[in-house]
Amino acid sequence: MNSSIIEKIRLAAPLIHCITNYVTVNDVANVLLAIGARPVMADDPEEAEEITALSAGLCLNIGTLNARTIPSMHAAGKRARDLGHPVVLDPVGAGASKLRTETAIRLLDEVHPTLVRGNISEIRTLAVGTGTTSGVDADAADAVTEENLSASADFVCAFAARTGALVAVTGAIDLVTDGSSCYAVRNGRSEMGRVTGTGCQLSALLAAALVTAPSDPIVAVAETVALMGVAGELAWDRMGEHDGNASYRTRIIDSIYCMTDEELAAHASITKL
Amino acid sequence: MNSSIIEKIRLAAPLIHCITNYVTVNDVANVLLAIGARPVMADDPEEAEEITALSAGLCLNIGTLNARTIPSMHAAGKRARDLGHPVVLDPVGAGASKLRTETAIRLLDEVHPTLVRGNISEIRTLAVGTGTTSGVDADAADAVTEENLSASADFVCAFAARTGALVAVTGAIDLVTDGSSCYAVRNGRSEMGRVTGTGCQLSALLAAALVTAPSDPIVAVAETVALMGVAGELAWDRMGEHDGNASYRTRIIDSIYCMTDEELAAHASITKL
Amino acid sequence: MNSSIIEKIRLAAPLIHCITNYVTVNDVANVLLAIGARPVMADDPEEAEEITALSAGLCLNIGTLNARTIPSMHAAGKRARDLGHPVVLDPVGAGASKLRTETAIRLLDEVHPTLVRGNISEIRTLAVGTGTTSGVDADAADAVTEENLSASADFVCAFAARTGALVAVTGAIDLVTDGSSCYAVRNGRSEMGRVTGTGCQLSALLAAALVTAPSDPIVAVAETVALMGVAGELAWDRMGEHDGNASYRTRIIDSIYCMTDEELAAHASITKL
Repeated sequence: MNSSIIEKIRLAAPLIHCITNYVTVNDVANVLLAIGARPVMADDPEEAEEITALSAGLCLNIGTLNARTIPSMHAAGKRARDLGHPVVLDPVGAGASKLRTETAIRLLDEVHPTLVRGNISEIRTLAVGTGTTSGVDADAADAVTEENLSASADFVCAFAARTGALVAVTGAIDLVTDGSSCYAVRNGRSEMGRVTGTGCQLSALLAAALVTAPSDPIVAVAETVALMGVAGELAWDRMGEHDGNASYRTRIIDSIYCMTDEELAAHASITKL
Repeated sequence: MNSSIIEKIRLAAPLIHCITNYVTVNDVANVLLAIGARPVMADDPEEAEEITALSAGLCLNIGTLNARTIPSMHAAGKRARDLGHPVVLDPVGAGASKLRTETAIRLLDEVHPTLVRGNISEIRTLAVGTGTTSGVDADAADAVTEENLSASADFVCAFAARTGALVAVTGAIDLVTDGSSCYAVRNGRSEMGRVTGTGCQLSALLAAALVTAPSDPIVAVAETVALMGVAGELAWDRMGEHDGNASYRTRIIDSIYCMTDEELAAHASITKL
Repeated sequence: MNSSIIEKIRLAAPLIHCITNYVTVNDVANVLLAIGARPVMADDPEEAEEITALSAGLCLNIGTLNARTIPSMHAAGKRARDLGHPVVLDPVGAGASKLRTETAIRLLDEVHPTLVRGNISEIRTLAVGTGTTSGVDADAADAVTEENLSASADFVCAFAARTGALVAVTGAIDLVTDGSSCYAVRNGRSEMGRVTGTGCQLSALLAAALVTAPSDPIVAVAETVALMGVAGELAWDRMGEHDGNASYRTRIIDSIYCMTDEELAAHASITKL
């Protein structure tokens, strides 16, 4: 597999508009800068569409949604689609509250995002209305495992086919599908779950990737999902004796900043199912 | 003193709902993950109660309060109390503005938090209406010292007795009381004041601690206050030549991630007054 | 040049009120603590003026402006001016949306900030209504270079003279002017652009600097601009093999925490034009 997604993004340096949560927004900005993209955050209805029009891609993340930013997400999302820009939807915590579930479903139905990236419980909530989301984490009962891999892939693939969106489900095993093909990505470490926002970061990176690889989006998505996982692996190898999740947070972004095509190609584990 | 609060939290992995300020929210999320709890941030009135109901504990922090989030704090706080969940109130900057003072007092009166954690000026403001809060820091004139320790403890204890809340006052010497017993905790370093949000982090950790130790809350609170201080001490010992407050910030959270019961027991300085 | 701005700020420890964006706010707070100032963030109209009155200086940053915070900026700005406090305006992304451009121009016209700090595209937008702002970054076409230095300085100086504000334009070469004198600062590294918020941090530091050097503000501004650049240079020298922009972010703030007058004097490159 040609792992040139890093070079593509660095070359294009796309401006990515993020309407995202205030918990992880700084890391989202820095991870975009790490890979060579450029972030712009703007969430007010008065300017959301205009900032979207200026940008190359859009990332909608409902992590700390509110009555002011939901209309901004809709307006920006529709504008981006009209302009042919990729839109990533990150349905953080869908299933955890009625507001999150309904907002995510409405964005899915009305904006028609290019890609949805979430954990398996969030995706189940969007697909069948009942995930067992526990806060913003996936529920263990939903987890994609080697045992249920085939059934999980079928489920996610059917959801992608029905919605017309690319879908990336991240967890111990990641699944990427466009509704016909499906890839499993086996990268990353469980300790990444101890750093807030690695999923948010990936969603923003995926918006950058989709801008730069319009002709083969599913491969770009699979490579970018692998990239985030590989960053987590390399960062863990660089941990020192007293390092914990705060150092890990720093090292993950650093690993993306430093990553070469060769490193990604050597470590990425992407399998077509 | 049995310092098993770390193991208790790691075992329970409680979901903690934080309605908190956007300045330090990322560190609050990461410190909860460091100790083995799970954070969820949600501040819109449309979902605050529902997220609280899903969670095991609630932390209300008024650091960047506004007209939209104050009602969320009240609704979430009352719901948590109805459900028997612990509620921590962090009255950031009470005394610095009418809005902060009144909001903190109303939350105290109407939500009846399980625990109030603040600096001495904030607590004085809540207790007698006149602290000399200087921004979000305690005023030197209010400081708890060895000289005024007994009088300070009496003051804080009376406040706890009157409100029915546990109270943790943090500063050079920390005081923890339930209105009858009072503990002094002598841990931490003054340099922790050069990192924004160590108080916010502690408040969130206290919510996690209270979830896991309902039968002996005052000891859990004292241990957790000591834990934060010990993390500051251990993190300082790990500082390198050119490290400053930004590295210290990272190392404090790392120290919580790595801390063992034995380390905590060896360093905690908790005295019953 | 006497580089005592660090000592002045450490001695005064001024309280700086920041109404700022949620992307970089944590770094803004920590950089103020690094230099020995004290941050307070408060953006609600109900308390903005009161917090300003309590503080010594004000930093208005429109990075994630919205309908609720714009009135807070106006109210706080006017109150600060009435009290004789320095006000810094950081017009993040002016030119990128009508809302940003109009808000920045109205703040400039109605608040009369002591200092405006921005990139050259933002300043062009304020000066002539047409910058070629690309998101929140300066456009390459606008860049201040050795070739256009004299013309750029004249342009910025005229803008300062017309508005009555000090102006600091940061980029590869920084310009500082009060409308009559103009300084060029040649410090910093291009890699600082890969860390979100170094401009926001500088704006907050400038508010602290202006509090402590009312008699010679332009020199204080030039020194503080140099300080930020020198921090970026020293931090880069301390980067390790696998470090990237996330570590750089930490090391820049650390460098400010650790910086001595001697280091600043040895590295600052400030030229009167």
